[in-house]
Parts: sequence; structure tokens; C-alpha cells
Amino acid sequence: MTLPRKDLFDLPEGVIYLDGNSLGPVPRGIGDVVQRVLHDEWGTELIRAWNNAGWMEAPQRVGDRIAPLIGAAPGTVAMGDTLSIKVFQALAAAIKMRPDRRVILSDSGNFPSDLYMAQGLIGLVDDGWSLRTPAPEDLAEAITEEVGVVMLTHVDYRTGRLHDMQAITQAAHDAGAVMIWDLAHSAGAVPVALDASACEFAVGCTYKYLNGGPGAPAFIYVRPDLIGDLEPALSGWLGHEAPFAMEPAYRPALSTERMRVGTPPVVQMAMLDHALDVWDGVTMEEVRAASMALSERFIAEVEARCPDLALASPRDPSKRGSQVSFAYPDGYAAMQAVIARGVIGDFRAPDIMRFGFTPLYLDEADVIEAARIVTDVVNSGVWREPQFQVRSRVT
Amino acid sequence: MTLPRKDLFDLPEGVIYLDGNSLGPVPRGIGDVVQRVLHDEWGTELIRAWNNAGWMEAPQRVGDRIAPLIGAAPGTVAMGDTLSIKVFQALAAAIKMRPDRRVILSDSGNFPSDLYMAQGLIGLVDDGWSLRTPAPEDLAEAITEEVGVVMLTHVDYRTGRLHDMQAITQAAHDAGAVMIWDLAHSAGAVPVALDASACEFAVGCTYKYLNGGPGAPAFIYVRPDLIGDLEPALSGWLGHEAPFAMEPAYRPALSTERMRVGTPPVVQMAMLDHALDVWDGVTMEEVRAASMALSERFIAEVEARCPDLALASPRDPSKRGSQVSFAYPDGYAAMQAVIARGVIGDFRAPDIMRFGFTPLYLDEADVIEAARIVTDVVNSGVWREPQFQVRSRVT
Repeated sequence: MTLPRKDLFDLPEGVIYLDGNSLGPVPRGIGDVVQRVLHDEWGTELIRAWNNAGWMEAPQRVGDRIAPLIGAAPGTVAMGDTLSIKVFQALAAAIKMRPDRRVILSDSGNFPSDLYMAQGLIGLVDDGWSLRTPAPEDLAEAITEEVGVVMLTHVDYRTGRLHDMQAITQAAHDAGAVMIWDLAHSAGAVPVALDASACEFAVGCTYKYLNGGPGAPAFIYVRPDLIGDLEPALSGWLGHEAPFAMEPAYRPALSTERMRVGTPPVVQMAMLDHALDVWDGVTMEEVRAASMALSERFIAEVEARCPDLALASPRDPSKRGSQVSFAYPDGYAAMQAVIARGVIGDFRAPDIMRFGFTPLYLDEADVIEAARIVTDVVNSGVWREPQFQVRSRVT
Repeated sequence: MTLPRKDLFDLPEGVIYLDGNSLGPVPRGIGDVVQRVLHDEWGTELIRAWNNAGWMEAPQRVGDRIAPLIGAAPGTVAMGDTLSIKVFQALAAAIKMRPDRRVILSDSGNFPSDLYMAQGLIGLVDDGWSLRTPAPEDLAEAITEEVGVVMLTHVDYRTGRLHDMQAITQAAHDAGAVMIWDLAHSAGAVPVALDASACEFAVGCTYKYLNGGPGAPAFIYVRPDLIGDLEPALSGWLGHEAPFAMEPAYRPALSTERMRVGTPPVVQMAMLDHALDVWDGVTMEEVRAASMALSERFIAEVEARCPDLALASPRDPSKRGSQVSFAYPDGYAAMQAVIARGVIGDFRAPDIMRFGFTPLYLDEADVIEAARIVTDVVNSGVWREPQFQVRSRVT
């Protein structure tokens, strides 16, 4: 497959979309898929569609499609819920694996919801666990033998800085800790070798680089040797070995299905299933190479035109994910003005203008034009106009 | 509004649908709603739709549409996740409210996932809590001062037996316990007076009598005076007071929004929003009266024709929800044969043939015809044919 393949997506006219790291665009044909679910399955089969249309098995099937994108074996990925819930599942299992320790280690750059979920879990179990969040650069020395669980997001959502999955997992294991990776900004963006890393857990979402749509189901990976002893904290009926036997006691499924909880979101699962078709015939290595070329070009164009934008991402492309961030004090207003000119990136507090590079639907010309518009907006001061100063709730 | 209003639904030809208590049918026009979300919102606005199309606020808006159907004030119902997750949220909050007690009381007729979630929570916190599940008829004497939390499903999923919400909540409170109601088979089926009951929590799903579609988002109600002190165990970023401030510490939203966890399933939320239109102009009292008339007629027709079917639901219609169950030793095969004749009910282990009555789209003629088919199947022994004996996974 030659990249990009813009014909696999329905992209609006006149827009250069550099926010696929927040919400991927519409995979072409998804409307037909949903109509089929609504009419041919739900509408025609009604309750029988759970069997006849494969709704009950869809999470497994979809998990097995995501597994190769993150270097995981078939049968190791369970789908459902949201990423925050999957973080909770992983953390709740991990703390039970290290009952003699009492520290969850993350870093200060982690996505807040991961930290919040850890805080909620710690409050719930209330037996002395605490959360430490050193700066990412101080992580290596923070992985001590007090630490029971290391939980990190592979690609920093603000800066795009890429953690060394293999080395950190090894360090965690050397210290006797359990390793959890959040792949929110990795799955579909950079090659990931979960099985090879030997990490215990990984979690991720599917509405970013996997283009599953707003609120698409999340995933959790459990290292295969661990699943048999794992007692799920969120022990829902669809994680039961025989959900429809309606037994009074929970008996976990023998497979990774024990990480399922409740009724799957059938329509959004079907959307995600369709969205994964775009990965047929392309390797993550091809995507990564194209992404690095696009982001390098973008940085060069921006820096040549606009010294006021300070690169906030690692300069070495092998050390960042598939995004480029620039710090700019008036970044919020500047990004609104950039969006008004048809280049969609986003802003992350306090001062980060963030641009995602998604080679499935972006080419070099897009990136050059986007850099021209971004730098024109900043250099011209057009962002000072009042309409760009008003904050919306979702920024 | 005169009931039924079949024109509000897309029902397949030749089917009498008595399984709306498991999965409601397609509300007419839902396909157009989804196409609008996919094309006009996601496809056109991309990431901007979180603001411009009201995606972020949709859970609140939808919660406020469900509230009046369950006797709850605006602002008391939070949407998202699955019912099992909402059960966990309620239980995790409830046990913290009674730190000097150590018993969660449910009943043996409760839906297994509710019991499983309690078992998982108990295993996670691991500080002496236990789960008791007496028979429903022994509940009153089981509500002792050892009990910290009473968690019951209002309408029994097997038998349709309706618990007395007001009396049991009062008994729980008299004993000093927190009360959680599961409204899975109540919301949209029977009048519910949550605020009047003074129960602390209620949870429910929306894919049954509320017709939100397979995997539609769940809900949780928190009594308004409690929300300010409630520390969510599942403390996700969308329950934060300022999700996009990206603060390192969780700070719960001041409102019931603190029960939100992760990114909402936008498409399924829009589907549910549309599905709730069918309740405009109809009262739960009208629905209840029609449901009782339909179920009474069904029981009379079945019992007059087929003494082998033993009523497993309370005979007094005021003591059952909107379903009628018959026990029959070969109920699984019999139900398959009934379904093959165009009457869709379902089977619940070990021997329950279950029929739901949903007056929005069922009339008396449907019920009489359904009774004729059910009794013909049982009396004729056609269910002994081999094709009806094969168990599917989802029964």
C-alpha cells in the first residue's frame, strides 16, 4: 500500500486535519455499516442478533484485530468500556500482584485521567498505597524497590515524548514491579511490541489513531501467563465463564474475556471493526516512517518561518510519537485562529499547540500548507482578535 | 397519547415482540439520527463536534430526560458506561458511607452481574465485607443492623416479582443501611418514585424498556444531598470539575457529573437521546395500566389453554413488573419453537419462559395471538424436534 490513502476516509473539503491524535476522522463506508447493524441486525433480528449477528463475540474479534497493531498475540486483548475503566482494571489487578509494596509510580506528564483513576483506587482500597509522579526525566531513579506498580503513558499527550518501553519495563521488572503501559497515543501511531516487552498490562483507546469514532470502546492487554490467576475487580457477567448460566458466584472466564465487564456497545463496536479495515495491507513500520517524515518537514517549515514557536517535542524523531507540539504563551487563541483558517490541531493547557501526523490521510503538501498557515497566524497576530480569545469548555 | 403507538417503532413484519424487556426494538428515525452524527457532526466538525454538536454535554441532557421517568429531579442522573460499572460505582460509594458495618445484603433472585460486581469489590477492598443473598421472601428479616448496604433489583429478572421500593428502603434506613436500587427492569416499565423513596442510589440500563439499542449507556442516580461528600472510586477525568484544565489531582465535579468516568459513547448516546422521544406525551401510569391489562390477558389465555405452563410470576399484577414468566421443564426448547413461530420471548435458566409486555408497541390482539402460539407449541410437542434442542451461547 502506498501512503497516504485518503480515499479510505471521508475528510471535509478545505480542512487539513492535524488532530487525528485526539479524534480520528470518518472511515469511508461507516454509515453503511451502521445502517446494516440498525436495520438488518437490530431491526430485523431483534434480541436474536446477539447470536445471529455475532454481537456477543464481536469484542473478541475486534480485540484480535487490534492485537497485531500493538505487538500482541491473538486472544490477549479484551475490548469494552472506556480507557479510564481499563486503567482501573489494570491497576486493581496490579496492586494485588504486589501486596508487599505500596507505591504506584507514574510520571507528572501522564494523562490526568490515569492519575485520577489511581487516586480513586487508592482511596477505595485505603490500605496505604500512594501515587508518585516524578518528572518524566527523573523516572529511572524513581523505580525503586518500594514501587509495586509502574504505570506510564507511552507517548506523552502534551509533548509527544516517547518512553523507551523495553528499557523501562526491564527496569520495573528488575525492581520487582508490575508494568502497565497506556497506549492511547501509540496504538496506530508507532510500532509497539507488547509481547516482546514482557509488560504485564497495557490499555488504550481506539478513537484516536484507530479512527473508531467518538467514544469508541477501549482495550486492555493482559500478558498471557497472568490471566489464569487474575481476579478481576470489575467482575461483570460478561467476564464470567458462563454468563448465561446465571450462576450466583462469579467464575472468571478462562481467557482474556474475563476482563470484559458489561454488555458491549454493539453499534460503536461495529464502527470500530469497520475502522480497522484501513490497516489491511499496511505495516506500522511504513506508517511510522511516513509519520516521521511528515513531522520532520512540519518542524523545519515552522521553525524556518516563526522563531516564536518553541518546539516542545523531542527534536529526535525516534524519541517522539506521531505528534509535534509547540509551546506558545498565547497558544489557545493562536490555535483558534489556526482552526479558523482550516488547519485543525488542538491546544493543551497551559501553552501547548499540538499537531498530530497521521500518514493514512495526510501528505507532504498538507503539512507544508499547514505550516504556512500556522506561522502566518502567529506572525500576523491575527489571533489577538476577540473571537479567538473566548474559551470553550472543551479545549 | 393513545397506546400503543406502533408507528414510533420499526418492527419486523410477522413478529410479535415480547422481549422488549431484554432489548427494545428500533425507534423509528434512529438511522437518520445516526447519519447526522456521523456525517454532519463527526464527519464535518471532526474534533470540534465535542463543542459544536454538544457531545460533551449530551450525557447530562439525556440524564435529565431519564430522570422524570424514574421519579428523580433534574441533575440527579449521570449517564455512561454499563450497568455493571454503575453498580460498582454505587456499591463502592455505599460501603464508604458505612465504615462500621461489613455486610452487603442482596437477594438470591438478583441479577448475577450485580452479585458478581459486589464480589469483585469485596475482593478488591479486602477488609471484611461480605455479601449475603437470602431468598427474596426472607429479605425483611435479613435487614439487620449488621447490614451496611442493601442492593436489590426492583423487578426480578426471572419472575418479574416487584419489590416494594418504599417499604424496603424504609426498612434499610431504619436499620441504618444505605439503599441501592437496580432499575434494569423498571425504567420505562413501571412507575418509580426515586426521590420519594429517599434511597441513596439507583442504577439502570437503557436498552430494555427505554429502547436505546444494544449496548446503550447506563445510568446512575445519586440522592442530591449526598453528591457533595461522595468520593468516586472510578474517578475519571470527565467526572473532574475541570476536565480540560488537566490538573494533576482529581477534584470531583460539584454536581452528579462526578459519576461520569471516561469519554462518552457519542453515537450510542445520540441513539438513546432519540429513543427517549417515544415517552413524550405519555405517562408511566398510562403505560403501567396498559401493561397490566396486557399481561393479565396473556396469563388468562395461556392458563385457559395450557395447564402445563406454571405461572412463575406473582399472580397479583400490582406485585409484578412488566413481564410474565412461566416455568416449564423444557422451556429452552419450547421457547426456541415459539420464536420459530414468530413470537419472540426469551429463556432464563433453569426453566423460565419469559415474556415482556411493552404497551408502546403491543396491543391486545398481539397478546392473544402470542398466547395462542405459545400454547400450541407446548401442547403440540413440536419443541421436541431436534432443531429446537441446540443451545446457543446467548439464551
